[in-house]
Amino acid sequence: MDKITIDGIKLHDLKTIYNPMGNILHGYKKSDYDFIEFGEVYFSSIKSGCIKGWNLHKRMTLNLIVPIGKVFFVVFDNREKSTTYGNYFEIELSIDNYKRLTIPPHLCVAFKGKGNPENLILNIADMEHDPSEIKKLKLDHINYNWNNI
Amino acid sequence: MDKITIDGIKLHDLKTIYNPMGNILHGYKKSDYDFIEFGEVYFSSIKSGCIKGWNLHKRMTLNLIVPIGKVFFVVFDNREKSTTYGNYFEIELSIDNYKRLTIPPHLCVAFKGKGNPENLILNIADMEHDPSEIKKLKLDHINYNWNNI
Repeated sequence: MDKITIDGIKLHDLKTIYNPMGNILHGYKKSDYDFIEFGEVYFSSIKSGCIKGWNLHKRMTLNLIVPIGKVFFVVFDNREKSTTYGNYFEIELSIDNYKRLTIPPHLCVAFKGKGNPENLILNIADMEHDPSEIKKLKLDHINYNWNNI
Repeated sequence: MDKITIDGIKLHDLKTIYNPMGNILHGYKKSDYDFIEFGEVYFSSIKSGCIKGWNLHKRMTLNLIVPIGKVFFVVFDNREKSTTYGNYFEIELSIDNYKRLTIPPHLCVAFKGKGNPENLILNIADMEHDPSEIKKLKLDHINYNWNNI
């Protein structure tokens, strides 16, 4: 069980159903207790060793799933009034740690590709992509040691 | 442009947005003109050379995307009152032919994995999985020559 160190982050175990011809991997469904709204689904791929981030969404809640490869996510809480202000949350998602990671708005998110050759993230977002709600920060804007990841 | 040989099937070009650290791959959004309803998203994987099908959904509309590998889909129209009754629709989806394939209910669908090692299908369905709405037919129930695929 991963310890949730940031208020509002959720982690949901997802089922994989064995089939000799290829498995079924669960994702997200409308009756899930935490379902908010469907806005858009899209993939982000991240090459091995590359880091994308930091992204701060002002309105979007992310639901992240990694069906291919391995991706290490780091979330930083810089919400001044948060009870977990200043905390980091770290998790590596893959088919071997197959979960849905829910990240509410106003947190800083970055991620590094760890698998080879492909690392694929599915985001099931509660709203459509809107560049005006995304604040992009340079990687060195938040102090985090990526070298050991 | 692929010719749509079965009434009700739709094929939507999807954007891929280049990023040197890993591309963004579009999927499906609520404002798409053909958006019906969000029910569930899940993945089906299919091993190279394996065939799954035939499946006939009585109520579910499928929205299929292949972000990894190559999958050859065959749809057969056995709706007796259809103007395209008896027709087949064939398409190979992959990142090189990156589209969303919309398949309405009451059609027979089968698919074969063509890439190596991984072939992944995302289904964005308008309803949640419900075994009572799926009719499974044996592969030889519908006459189709898979040997050349």
